[in-house]
Amino acid sequence: MIYNIDKMYENVKNKGHVCVGLDTAADYVPASERRKAQNDADAVLTFNKALIDATFDAVACFKVQIAYYEEMGINGLRAYSETLKYIRAKGGLTIADIKRGDIADTAMRYVKAHFNGDFEADFVTISPYMGMDSVEPWLKEAQAFGKGAFVLMRTSNAGMRDFQYLELGSAGKRVYHIVGDKLSALADQFKGNYGYGMFGAVVGCTERDEAAEIRKNYPNLFLLIPGYGAQGGGAQDAALLLREGNGGVVNASRSIITAWQKAENCGDADNTFAAEAARQAAIKMRDEILGAI
Amino acid sequence: MIYNIDKMYENVKNKGHVCVGLDTAADYVPASERRKAQNDADAVLTFNKALIDATFDAVACFKVQIAYYEEMGINGLRAYSETLKYIRAKGGLTIADIKRGDIADTAMRYVKAHFNGDFEADFVTISPYMGMDSVEPWLKEAQAFGKGAFVLMRTSNAGMRDFQYLELGSAGKRVYHIVGDKLSALADQFKGNYGYGMFGAVVGCTERDEAAEIRKNYPNLFLLIPGYGAQGGGAQDAALLLREGNGGVVNASRSIITAWQKAENCGDADNTFAAEAARQAAIKMRDEILGAI
Repeated sequence: MIYNIDKMYENVKNKGHVCVGLDTAADYVPASERRKAQNDADAVLTFNKALIDATFDAVACFKVQIAYYEEMGINGLRAYSETLKYIRAKGGLTIADIKRGDIADTAMRYVKAHFNGDFEADFVTISPYMGMDSVEPWLKEAQAFGKGAFVLMRTSNAGMRDFQYLELGSAGKRVYHIVGDKLSALADQFKGNYGYGMFGAVVGCTERDEAAEIRKNYPNLFLLIPGYGAQGGGAQDAALLLREGNGGVVNASRSIITAWQKAENCGDADNTFAAEAARQAAIKMRDEILGAI
Repeated sequence: MIYNIDKMYENVKNKGHVCVGLDTAADYVPASERRKAQNDADAVLTFNKALIDATFDAVACFKVQIAYYEEMGINGLRAYSETLKYIRAKGGLTIADIKRGDIADTAMRYVKAHFNGDFEADFVTISPYMGMDSVEPWLKEAQAFGKGAFVLMRTSNAGMRDFQYLELGSAGKRVYHIVGDKLSALADQFKGNYGYGMFGAVVGCTERDEAAEIRKNYPNLFLLIPGYGAQGGGAQDAALLLREGNGGVVNASRSIITAWQKAENCGDADNTFAAEAARQAAIKMRDEILGAI
């Protein structure tokens, strides 16, 4: 059994830390290609394939944000499914950014939906508000098939201060620390070969002051790191969340997949042009992070 | 503009407090009907329609749990879409139990997905862990179309003690109180004609000691109440979360939709038989709650 978290570690070692976020809206697709497609969902799928091919050797993994596909209804979810299949068929690693969080039998349905069948992914994201009984149902299936998950811990948006940041009565801890403590205990029980648990955490690179503390307190948590670029996090911030140069992937979505829109001649762009721009953006980000370690 | 929260209030007044949870797995469908169907998703859809018709005049609304449909892949999501459409075409109220929680542009994609198009519902459920910027994107669209939402506050599962229940440094409050405080402030700004906000909360009827306090502190929050039956909550517990006999709907899923499996002659059941059993279970539950007020 090869655990996906070990494949992830190896991908980071071999290809750097970039996670390409395929948060693909139809208006991110070059107009010439969009016109050619049967519908927006097909346009998105064809565009995604071009992006995946062009960035594949320069990135660790792909995160597919299901919201963008749900917006397009049934056709969109077919494009979502085909995008995951395309990456997996190439031997790539997929993170289904679904932020599900439900319990008991309902949770098991989600597990079956996203670790099997039409929507099978290598990792999922989970929202922990309901409690650890919304996280644990994923574990059994994760163990059996080597799957993994990233649980929201301290996100990169301003609103994270509303609840994740609430101070608890005891020992200067905040809510997100308790989430981290419980995840870290789980990670110790279900560990891959490189010291990281099959279940990691989502930690944004937007609060530099806390990065070293988080990395120190939770050495066994592999991190999915949002907040790079537009949300204010830089390579130095992301690097603080890594451990010996590994232990995390850094997500970027629009800065990679819409990089083509910044070109002077973007009015004439096709998917080949857009994919090459995405490749250059991914390589630049990869090298920035490697340079900051 | 008629707000859905006002229609919900009127439905409760006229038809009682039951919310039928259409958490419909294929093995909840009578075997004879399942054999007749083209696939499991179609079997579920036909079964749902029979349940909806049979319970319609005895219940306030229907909650459709998307996990059960995602499990069946693309076909399942088509059945999900058709189930919502069927209820809405009859003039019924739908709660999409999707527990989404994401921010900014991603949140807007979810809003478009679930307040419009293939998956349009009257209400959604939202998970608040990321913060109020994962709740607020729903509001604008909710206002424009009269839609509503229920945000997870204090759920009915054992794991709710993990994070929702954490005690804060100040004034004996817990995390879920802060969620309630923020929701209540929102509800005051966006209120229907009966004093309830367009955005209510999910509060389980499993912790009787807190029910009166929650109802008193958050009078403007309409509640979606899980935990009835199997999870231990009874009619008395649910009644404590109501206000002047209104202000909440009580969800029951399996106890209604699989009621037919408890009949002695259930081996011969068809959808008509199952629907009648569901109707009787819904009426019994409705009358228990009405009797406890």
